[in-house]
Amino acid sequence: MPKKHDFDFQEVTIPSPQEGEVLIRGKFFSVDPYMRGRMTTARSYVPPYEVGEPIDGGMIGEVLGSKSDTLKEGDYVWGMLPWKKEQVVTAESVQKIDPKLAPPQYFLGILGLTGITAYFGLLDIGKPQKGETVVVSAAAGAVGMVVGQIAKLKSCHVVGIAGSAEKIDFLKQELGFDEAFNYKAETDLRTAIQRAAPKGVDIYFDNVGGPISDAVIQELNPFSRIPLCGQISLYNETSMPTGPRIQPRLLKQRTLMKGFIVRDYLEQADQARQQLAQWIKEGKIKNKETLMEGFEKLPEAFIGLFHGKNTGKLIVKV
Amino acid sequence: MPKKHDFDFQEVTIPSPQEGEVLIRGKFFSVDPYMRGRMTTARSYVPPYEVGEPIDGGMIGEVLGSKSDTLKEGDYVWGMLPWKKEQVVTAESVQKIDPKLAPPQYFLGILGLTGITAYFGLLDIGKPQKGETVVVSAAAGAVGMVVGQIAKLKSCHVVGIAGSAEKIDFLKQELGFDEAFNYKAETDLRTAIQRAAPKGVDIYFDNVGGPISDAVIQELNPFSRIPLCGQISLYNETSMPTGPRIQPRLLKQRTLMKGFIVRDYLEQADQARQQLAQWIKEGKIKNKETLMEGFEKLPEAFIGLFHGKNTGKLIVKV
Repeated sequence: MPKKHDFDFQEVTIPSPQEGEVLIRGKFFSVDPYMRGRMTTARSYVPPYEVGEPIDGGMIGEVLGSKSDTLKEGDYVWGMLPWKKEQVVTAESVQKIDPKLAPPQYFLGILGLTGITAYFGLLDIGKPQKGETVVVSAAAGAVGMVVGQIAKLKSCHVVGIAGSAEKIDFLKQELGFDEAFNYKAETDLRTAIQRAAPKGVDIYFDNVGGPISDAVIQELNPFSRIPLCGQISLYNETSMPTGPRIQPRLLKQRTLMKGFIVRDYLEQADQARQQLAQWIKEGKIKNKETLMEGFEKLPEAFIGLFHGKNTGKLIVKV
Repeated sequence: MPKKHDFDFQEVTIPSPQEGEVLIRGKFFSVDPYMRGRMTTARSYVPPYEVGEPIDGGMIGEVLGSKSDTLKEGDYVWGMLPWKKEQVVTAESVQKIDPKLAPPQYFLGILGLTGITAYFGLLDIGKPQKGETVVVSAAAGAVGMVVGQIAKLKSCHVVGIAGSAEKIDFLKQELGFDEAFNYKAETDLRTAIQRAAPKGVDIYFDNVGGPISDAVIQELNPFSRIPLCGQISLYNETSMPTGPRIQPRLLKQRTLMKGFIVRDYLEQADQARQQLAQWIKEGKIKNKETLMEGFEKLPEAFIGLFHGKNTGKLIVKV
């Protein structure tokens, strides 16, 4: 489990922007569970962070100065950039965002990588059909809350699993989930799933892994689908996590399980972003963020992800 | 683990065939790992066998007497029928087979459910591409040997895992597998897989589950596929089998894992059977059977499946 003292702040000198470069100030910083996977030397789909170098991640910045033809002072941009208050980058390394479409920080969450993750994981892998039961773990998180709302738009019976009574209220009262339960308050997870999903589970959108997933997998219906999006319950394990073997169950139920990461869908990301923006505009999907203020809050915010501190997308505002 | 004394033989009186019925004599009986799953009351895709009633399974029979317009004496038929030496069934409950296409017992194996299982599992779920690496467990079994040979026809690097030196010779010398190893002779399965599949694993056709599958899963390539066909190593477990959690790996590699059973493909079975018969005729796919003689050998044959006694399709000939 990462600790605050694993992080350090350093003062550096910022150069002036040269031809084709811009000086930007970080306004909104994204903290995400996948970052934990980069804090190890294990082979993965992204290279590990280097000790002593800044972490990088999704950021919304404001252009303070420009030597580029494509960006001007006051523009808002999105980029995968180091955690720095200010920095000089090439104009090509960031994308200008349209602040008329939505507030800038939306482009880190519901209109950014987490919203697009939810969109393709559910629609491309889960393929929800009317009347099916969709179970989402970490349902009140940045991805889960979007998954559940899209599943409702597809006329599914939507069940959320989350870790506090407040989150359960949020899912049922504000987002319109059909059922939701607090896994920490249940003595038997399988019974809780049976109660919330009496017709069994057709799609399990898995953000967490571990015992919650074990229980849901026991309740899968024939021809069910599992978009494997995250395994946050396992990211801080120091030895190989073990658990019940799932293949016999997946075989019996002819279940499809598919890992995916949002990068696999980047070519179609605009299509998803347009659709999500449209749904938000029509009031069909609600957004929710947990904002923490101050650059120095970044480590605490990141660590908080693994303790369920956030409802919706967790963002550090500077 | 089933034992011989779990089985019993009984003498029964056979009625005469009535209008629309035929009397058939069992000539070839199929014994298959899936049958173990019916020897339990656990919910599955087929109902359990009843204690005291005969087991049923795939059988090739010869028509001894007919009161049906569609079948005549001497015809060979395939059916899912009780293990009886002779029996009266309705003509509609069996299918006439064409002995000119192949020897009758082929319709229990390479042109029957196991061949069709291999065909669709590999081609529909695995989707092999030229140059990819395909690993097959229980490679010398009825399904595995067909999987590996089709994968060779698709220009893949084919690796077989089996449980004896004889089986390894058979796979490499007779069936043309590129690599094969005896898992019982390896001290480290993962090293063995790395040696046989130096470019990693694109398709893992899983017939066995357990530690062999754990090792292969560690060597999966990005966008790999796992047709989940069988889990024979776990069928006789008396408690919930546990092992390393596989989801983190499937997620990182964006692997697709899909359970299937041949029944899901029965509508397209004829297409597969024609193609397989064509390949056999052209010498592109070889068949292999282990024949045991005598009706009373059925229990021993079935039990032998779990001890790796067979190379190719295991059939009891009467």
